[in-house]
Amino acid sequence: MRNRSAYDELLSHLQRIHHLETVAGLLGWDEQVNLPPNSADLRARQHAVMAETRHAAATATSLGELLATLEQSAAELDADQRIVVREARRDYDRATKLPADFVREKAAQSSIGYHAWAKARAAADFAGYAPVLAKNLELAKREAAYLGWGDRPYDYMIDKHDPGMTAAAITKLFTELKAELVPLVRRITASPVKPQRELLRGFPVEAQRDFLREVTEKLGFDYGRGRIDVSLHPFCSGSGADIRMTTRFNADEPLDSLFSSIHETGHGLYEQGLPGAHHATALGQAAGMGAHESQSRLWENQVGRSREFWRHFEPRFRATFPQQTAAVASDELYLAINAVAPTLIRVDADEVTYNLHIILRFEIEQRLFAGTLAVRDLPAAWNTLAQELLGLTPANDREGVLQDVHWSDGAFGYFPSYCLGNMLAAQLWYRALELHPKLPEDFAAGNFGWLLDWLHENVHALGKRYPLPELARRVTGEELSPRALVRYLQERYVPLYCS
Amino acid sequence: MRNRSAYDELLSHLQRIHHLETVAGLLGWDEQVNLPPNSADLRARQHAVMAETRHAAATATSLGELLATLEQSAAELDADQRIVVREARRDYDRATKLPADFVREKAAQSSIGYHAWAKARAAADFAGYAPVLAKNLELAKREAAYLGWGDRPYDYMIDKHDPGMTAAAITKLFTELKAELVPLVRRITASPVKPQRELLRGFPVEAQRDFLREVTEKLGFDYGRGRIDVSLHPFCSGSGADIRMTTRFNADEPLDSLFSSIHETGHGLYEQGLPGAHHATALGQAAGMGAHESQSRLWENQVGRSREFWRHFEPRFRATFPQQTAAVASDELYLAINAVAPTLIRVDADEVTYNLHIILRFEIEQRLFAGTLAVRDLPAAWNTLAQELLGLTPANDREGVLQDVHWSDGAFGYFPSYCLGNMLAAQLWYRALELHPKLPEDFAAGNFGWLLDWLHENVHALGKRYPLPELARRVTGEELSPRALVRYLQERYVPLYCS
Repeated sequence: MRNRSAYDELLSHLQRIHHLETVAGLLGWDEQVNLPPNSADLRARQHAVMAETRHAAATATSLGELLATLEQSAAELDADQRIVVREARRDYDRATKLPADFVREKAAQSSIGYHAWAKARAAADFAGYAPVLAKNLELAKREAAYLGWGDRPYDYMIDKHDPGMTAAAITKLFTELKAELVPLVRRITASPVKPQRELLRGFPVEAQRDFLREVTEKLGFDYGRGRIDVSLHPFCSGSGADIRMTTRFNADEPLDSLFSSIHETGHGLYEQGLPGAHHATALGQAAGMGAHESQSRLWENQVGRSREFWRHFEPRFRATFPQQTAAVASDELYLAINAVAPTLIRVDADEVTYNLHIILRFEIEQRLFAGTLAVRDLPAAWNTLAQELLGLTPANDREGVLQDVHWSDGAFGYFPSYCLGNMLAAQLWYRALELHPKLPEDFAAGNFGWLLDWLHENVHALGKRYPLPELARRVTGEELSPRALVRYLQERYVPLYCS
Repeated sequence: MRNRSAYDELLSHLQRIHHLETVAGLLGWDEQVNLPPNSADLRARQHAVMAETRHAAATATSLGELLATLEQSAAELDADQRIVVREARRDYDRATKLPADFVREKAAQSSIGYHAWAKARAAADFAGYAPVLAKNLELAKREAAYLGWGDRPYDYMIDKHDPGMTAAAITKLFTELKAELVPLVRRITASPVKPQRELLRGFPVEAQRDFLREVTEKLGFDYGRGRIDVSLHPFCSGSGADIRMTTRFNADEPLDSLFSSIHETGHGLYEQGLPGAHHATALGQAAGMGAHESQSRLWENQVGRSREFWRHFEPRFRATFPQQTAAVASDELYLAINAVAPTLIRVDADEVTYNLHIILRFEIEQRLFAGTLAVRDLPAAWNTLAQELLGLTPANDREGVLQDVHWSDGAFGYFPSYCLGNMLAAQLWYRALELHPKLPEDFAAGNFGWLLDWLHENVHALGKRYPLPELARRVTGEELSPRALVRYLQERYVPLYCS
C-alpha cells in the first residue's frame, strides 16, 4: 500500500515535469513559426524561466526520495511500473549528477558555440570555430565522467540519443553498410540515367499546401490532434496530444515540401501512436532517436517514394497542378522523386548517399573522442573522408566541416541515429511485407491503414520499454543490421539507374 | 545597501512571475488561434501546471519577507520604487489572503459556471443558471471579505478592474451620462437617415487582411514586436515585447474585421508603449481596465470613424476593393462606418448605444450586491431596463440576461470599465485637439504620429503609477466625466442623423 501511493506520487511528479516540457516545447515551436522578429529577447527570458522551473521539478529532493523508496521495494511493482521507475531514475540521475557550475558553463557555452559556428560558417573559416569545438569536446567528456561514463565518453553520447547502442556496435553496422553502399553509389553515379528535378517549376504554394494536407491526412495523421505550419527548417514537435509539424514551400521545389511533410508526418504518427494515458512516463514516450527516425524514414522513403504510392497520388498530383505537370512524363516524375546524386551537403542528400554523410561524421566523432584526431586537423580529415565516401571534395569548410550546427551545441553522438533509423525502417518494411504481402497493392488503392495499425501495435504501443537493438529484434525477428537497408536501396535504385 | 539589494531581489522575483505570466498568456493565445480541436485536455493540464507554478511564485514566503523589509525602510526608496513595492504588495495580498480551499472552490465553480451558462444560453433558460449565479455572487462577497472589503464587496469588484474607482463614483458618472444619452439615442432612432451596411458585400478575406495590416501599421503598431491572427472573438494579448492581436473575417462584414482590428491595435499600442525595461513591475504595466479601454476606443472611434481618417484611407479602400465599392457613394460609406441602431446584444452595439448596455449591467450588479434584487428576479429587471434604456425588450433570456459570459466566471465589476474607457477616450481626444488643433488635418494626410507620441508620453509612459481618476486629471486637466463623451457623440452623430 505504501508503495502504491509512492508510485502514484511519482506519476504526479512526472506529469508535472512532462507538462512543463510540453509548454517549453510549444514556446520553441512558436519561436520558429510565429515569433515577431524583435521579440527574441522576451522569448529567451521565457525559455530561461521555463528551464529553471523544469530543472527544479526534475531535481527535487522529494523525487529522489520517491525513487529510492520505490527501488527498495521494486518487487511490489509490476513490469511496466519497473520500467517507469528505471527511466525516471535515469532522467533523475542525468539531471542531478551534473554540478550546477557545470550546467551553467555548458549553457553559456551553448550560446557561444552557436554564434561562433554561425560566424565561422558564414566566413568559411574553421580556425575561429576550432577552440569552441575543443571546449565542447572537453565539456562532453566531463559530462560523461559526472554520469559515470568517464572511460567511455563517446558511448555515453551515443547512449543519450539511443539507449543501448555503443560505438563498437555502430562501427560493426556501419562497416558492413559502407562496404555495400559505396559501390552502389558509384554505379548510380556512373549511370547515364539522370533525374531532372528542374522539370518541376512554378507550383503555387496554396495548392502545394492542399496537396500535402491531403497526402498526410491519408497516411493517417490526425489533424484533430495536430497541425502543420511553415518554418525555415521543417521539424516535428509537441506531444501526441498536440503535434506541431512544420514544412517550407518553394514554388520550384514541390517535392521538397511534400517529402519533408511526409517525413515529419512519420514522426508525428509515432507520437500520436504512443499510448496517450502514459505520455508523462516511459510507457508513453518514444524509444529513442533511432526509433523515431525509423518512423519518419519509413513513411518518407519506403512508402512515399514507392511506385504504388504514386500510382495512387499521381492522378491527384496532376489534377492539382495540371499546367505544371503537363510536360512531365510519369517516368520522369518518378525518377525525380527518386533522384540520387552525391552532394557535399548532408541536408540536401538523397536517401542513398545520406547514409555516407552519417558514416563520415561517425568516423570523425570516434577519432575525436579517442584522441586520435586533433580538432585542428578536422577539416583535412573531413575532406579526405568526403572524397573517399562521396567522391567529392569540399571547396571550402562551409561545404565541409562547418555545414552542421550539431557540434556547436555539443550534440555529439547524435548523427548515427539517423542512419540507425534508416536501417530499422528497412527492416520494419520487409517484416511488414512478409506479414502483409499486399501492402503495395493497398498503397496503390490509397489505403495506408494496415501499415499504420501494425506500427501502432508493434512499435508505438511499446513506448520506451526496449532499447533500439531489442526493439528491432522483437518487432522484426532479426538483429539490427544494414542488410535490409542495402536490399531495399538495391531493389529500388538498381532497376531505375542500372538496368 | 541592504535595502538596495532587497529591492533588486524583489525585481528579480517580479520578473520571474511576469515571465511565467507571459508564457501562460501565450498558451491562452495559442488556444484561441492554433489549438487543434481535440487537444483541449492537454491545454487544460498545461494551464493548470502554469497556474500552479505562478501561484507558488506569487505567494512565496520569501516575497512576503522582501516586501516587509522594503516597507519598513520605505524612506530609503525613491518614488518609483515605492510604487513598485505598493503594487507588489497589493498583488501579494490578493494572492495570499485567499485560503487555498476558497481558491480551489472558486476554480471549480469557474468551470461549472461556464458550462452552466453555455447550456442555459443555448436553451434560453435562465432557471438552470440562477443557482450558479447565486453561488458566484456569494463567492465574490466572500472574496471581498477575505481581502478586507467585507463591508463594500461591489467596490472591491470594481477596484479589481479599476483601482481607485467606487460604485458611488460610477453612479454619479453614469447618471449624468444616461440623462444625455437616452434622448440622443431617441433622436437618432427617430431619424429618417438609415445607414445601409448591407451595401458592403463580398470583400475577399485576403484583401481585407492586407488592408487592415496597412491601416494598423500606419496607426503605429509595430509588427516587429507583434502580430495579428484570426480567432472566434477578437482580442489582444501578450506583453509589449510580443503583442498578439486577433481579428475575424466575414466577406460580408468588412467593417467588422477592420474596426475590431483598430480596436485591438489601440490596446496593442498601449502595451507596446509601456516602458519596456519595466514590463515586470507596475512602472511598465497598464493602469487598469478603463485606461486600457480608453486607448482601444480612442483609436477605434475618435480616430478610426472620423471623416479625416477616411479622407486618407477611402482611396486605398476603394483601390483594394474596386468592384465591391463601385456602387457605394462616399457618404453612404461614411454613414455605414458610423451606423447607429439600438440592438439587444451588447457586442453588436454601436459606440453610442454601447454605453447604455453598460449602464444596464452596472445598475443590475449594484442591486445584486446590495441585496435589493434577488437572482431569480434578474430576467425581469433586465428586461425592464432594456426597454427603459434601449427601447427594446428581449424576446427571451438569450437576448437578455444570458448574453454575456462574464458573470458565469464571477467577473462582476468588469463591465463599467468599458464605459469609463469611453469617457476617458473622449477626454483625451479633446485634450489632444486642444494641444494640436491640426490633428484632423494630420489624419487626412495619413499622419498619426503626433497622437501616438502624445499618448506614449502622457499615458503609456506612466504605467500603473496613477489610478484612473488621477490619470484623467493629470493628462486632461479635468476630472473624469461623461461631458467630453457626450460632446463627442453629439458632434459626430447629430450632423449625420439629425440635421
